[in-house]
Amino acid sequence: MTPTSWTRRHVLSLADFTLAELDTVMQTANRFQSVLQRRTKKVPTLQARLVSNLFFEPSTRTRNSFELAAKRLSADVLNFAPATSALSKGETILDTAKTFLAMGADLMVIRHQQSGVPQRIAAEMDRLGGQVGILNAGDGCHEHPSQALLDLFTLCNVLDSEAPTPTLLTGKKVAIVGDILHSRVVRSNLYSLGVSGAVVHLAAPPTLLPREFEAYGATVHWALQPALQEADFVMTLRLQKERMSQHLIPSLREYFQQFGITRDRLQVCQPHVKVLHPGPVNRGVEISSDLMDDPDLSLITDQVTSGVAVRMALLYLMGSGGNLAGLPVG
Amino acid sequence: MTPTSWTRRHVLSLADFTLAELDTVMQTANRFQSVLQRRTKKVPTLQARLVSNLFFEPSTRTRNSFELAAKRLSADVLNFAPATSALSKGETILDTAKTFLAMGADLMVIRHQQSGVPQRIAAEMDRLGGQVGILNAGDGCHEHPSQALLDLFTLCNVLDSEAPTPTLLTGKKVAIVGDILHSRVVRSNLYSLGVSGAVVHLAAPPTLLPREFEAYGATVHWALQPALQEADFVMTLRLQKERMSQHLIPSLREYFQQFGITRDRLQVCQPHVKVLHPGPVNRGVEISSDLMDDPDLSLITDQVTSGVAVRMALLYLMGSGGNLAGLPVG
Amino acid sequence: MTPTSWTRRHVLSLADFTLAELDTVMQTANRFQSVLQRRTKKVPTLQARLVSNLFFEPSTRTRNSFELAAKRLSADVLNFAPATSALSKGETILDTAKTFLAMGADLMVIRHQQSGVPQRIAAEMDRLGGQVGILNAGDGCHEHPSQALLDLFTLCNVLDSEAPTPTLLTGKKVAIVGDILHSRVVRSNLYSLGVSGAVVHLAAPPTLLPREFEAYGATVHWALQPALQEADFVMTLRLQKERMSQHLIPSLREYFQQFGITRDRLQVCQPHVKVLHPGPVNRGVEISSDLMDDPDLSLITDQVTSGVAVRMALLYLMGSGGNLAGLPVG
Repeated sequence: MTPTSWTRRHVLSLADFTLAELDTVMQTANRFQSVLQRRTKKVPTLQARLVSNLFFEPSTRTRNSFELAAKRLSADVLNFAPATSALSKGETILDTAKTFLAMGADLMVIRHQQSGVPQRIAAEMDRLGGQVGILNAGDGCHEHPSQALLDLFTLCNVLDSEAPTPTLLTGKKVAIVGDILHSRVVRSNLYSLGVSGAVVHLAAPPTLLPREFEAYGATVHWALQPALQEADFVMTLRLQKERMSQHLIPSLREYFQQFGITRDRLQVCQPHVKVLHPGPVNRGVEISSDLMDDPDLSLITDQVTSGVAVRMALLYLMGSGGNLAGLPVG
Repeated sequence: MTPTSWTRRHVLSLADFTLAELDTVMQTANRFQSVLQRRTKKVPTLQARLVSNLFFEPSTRTRNSFELAAKRLSADVLNFAPATSALSKGETILDTAKTFLAMGADLMVIRHQQSGVPQRIAAEMDRLGGQVGILNAGDGCHEHPSQALLDLFTLCNVLDSEAPTPTLLTGKKVAIVGDILHSRVVRSNLYSLGVSGAVVHLAAPPTLLPREFEAYGATVHWALQPALQEADFVMTLRLQKERMSQHLIPSLREYFQQFGITRDRLQVCQPHVKVLHPGPVNRGVEISSDLMDDPDLSLITDQVTSGVAVRMALLYLMGSGGNLAGLPVG
Repeated sequence: MTPTSWTRRHVLSLADFTLAELDTVMQTANRFQSVLQRRTKKVPTLQARLVSNLFFEPSTRTRNSFELAAKRLSADVLNFAPATSALSKGETILDTAKTFLAMGADLMVIRHQQSGVPQRIAAEMDRLGGQVGILNAGDGCHEHPSQALLDLFTLCNVLDSEAPTPTLLTGKKVAIVGDILHSRVVRSNLYSLGVSGAVVHLAAPPTLLPREFEAYGATVHWALQPALQEADFVMTLRLQKERMSQHLIPSLREYFQQFGITRDRLQVCQPHVKVLHPGPVNRGVEISSDLMDDPDLSLITDQVTSGVAVRMALLYLMGSGGNLAGLPVG
């Protein structure tokens, strides 16, 4: 199967991703996953192209994953480090982005603690008539599209590693547990899982899960068990420790007692249930340590591996301008 | 036209640059500017050579520009980050430089908050008999040659983009406005503009512009308008916000009222006037926001783009040891 | 002479290195030293392989040396910077390492302020069935194998630059002077020098040199002169300035008066004596400034240069899985 064409310059949100687009990302990622299993894990696709990582908020995992994806596509990479940046000299974020554009960036991967920053940068780049593509690597509590796409790819791969396609998820029950309210990942997940036909259940204490999330087509639970009941997949979310000082949870220990995922609690799920977490994990808070390390139940390592393939796919699709002829044979 | 030969191992100051040398940099940069407009923006010129960026003072713009220039010449790059450095362990700056020399650095790009550091390092490297070339990327309030050369290239390009050569500036009036006293850029600019035959006028409050600057052959003004009168180009300089706490300016607002560049104030210049700024810009302090964003009047974006080409030219000229045969055809 | 085969996946300690293994490293480093003297200082050996530098403790010298070694083998490099890391988000060190494994790291170079961390990571990676190789780049006060191997290579090179082999050191007297107690380098040195047949004498104030070090087969001195007497080589160690506030030494000045190495004090050594220091040096504390800069007596620069060749050798040997056929001809 050949991926259909691709017309997006930017990847800012999954809100308007069609099933065909999700499928194109899955198929392209699948090809790169094969490349990553070869001895020579590199392709010349983006040679002499410039990928700039603008991480206004620090990140290890996501930045390294994008940096590696870019390098495995043979692109040159510039990392913007906020600590040593011109921002402390009073430059605006838009001006920083324009500087990287003027230096010749073909793609910018942007993370910012405020929602909407990648979108504003993309609008400004378009206004200037540039050809640069903007990829949202996490903005505030808003979205984190590449994380949701790697989650989707990980799920589809479990269901059919030869032909991972979103419709494999039709009718599957996915439980998402944790700090829904502050999660940028969950909003992107709700879009991609919804389009794929999954049945999504959310579980968290009411302070972390307002009823408004039903608007995404998900079922809201303020207790864990009904969400886990017969679930095919359980996606756990990171709990920021500062939620405790904000009095949104009583204590980490109590949170774990009520919403922490353990082997025992998975008994009510489907027998083939698998657990995901976007990382970094607080062991013994969102998930028990033994469950996290159980390769039969945990997909956490697969998510990291999928991340490189999915990000290669996104950079490739955005950088190729819709011409998919250069895609490596799977 | 073929650039004449090049004999400098180091680029530390523009004080003794000849017109022929400025012309060689302009012509070489022009060739690389063409390379940067191709789809494949890379040349193998400095393959397997090592460029070390030793930025003892933090910088985004200049370090990224040099890093990209080196990568587009296919060099390997090592970035020295002061925060995680051996300096905190008591090592001297010269010993740090010697370490990079011993590791095999071919070129070192050095920024330091103290004037004279790149010169001292260059003298020590020469004394040790090394072949390494030192490029001053800004030392204290002294010089910033690559910035002045990219400014020159930007100006010449406006006047003749096919054949940008310094003599195009002969007789042109260039107004330089801002914190002259503390600017490392302006001293380098005064040398290169002087050799090129430009007529330079300086404008700033007296606290930021001592009369001694007349020694550079420039006309000193403590008001804005006489400097702008019939100017062909207006170069604005960055104002460090700490100048206010040092009581060198009354307030940023008052500074802008007296010396900030706006569309209105440019009325007294030549109709084709263009405005430059080395960045990062404090919008509404040195320059009004709308003027900065006006592509008909502002060359700020061009300066950033030129920066990569000019730095490729400098690294190439220093690294090729005077052999210009490998220069890409323009 | 062709190096014998290599069977180690990890390099964590020199405690169990055989003479044959030390010789393999020396010979392999000698080949890469030749590569580094060519105009094209790069080999394609580790192309498309991923080397991750996980430096939980900051370092300039060692990290840059490994980064350069990896790049000269054409590997891709990811640098883990603790300041912007997921560790501050509560992730365990093992989980960080597993993330890099899942991203496809072939080799991990690990430094940590706590002894034993690289060993624990290696054990966990083995348990997971991964093929990744772990290189200890310094753990607490325990070991720093690559530093001791580059010291060994530097010594052997002085004795026979054509065929540097450990047995050249048999019967040579090596004096090691300084903060023995807290040095990670000295423990690795004691192993490699011992296997090579060198006669090792240690000198330091009693607060920095417990008698237990005799167990390594070394002679312990609490005064400088008996250690230096007829020494062929003097290895000085770095003195952390905080040793003074810990009352382990009276003052830096007094330390220098008693244990600092000067030209004068070397009079009692062999006429051909040479001095080493792992860097960064506190001039006038461990060693006098003029001695450090004397190319006839100091090997400090050679150590830095050897470092790149030895680290290329280690990454090559670990990454080639025992197949030495691809080694460049010396």
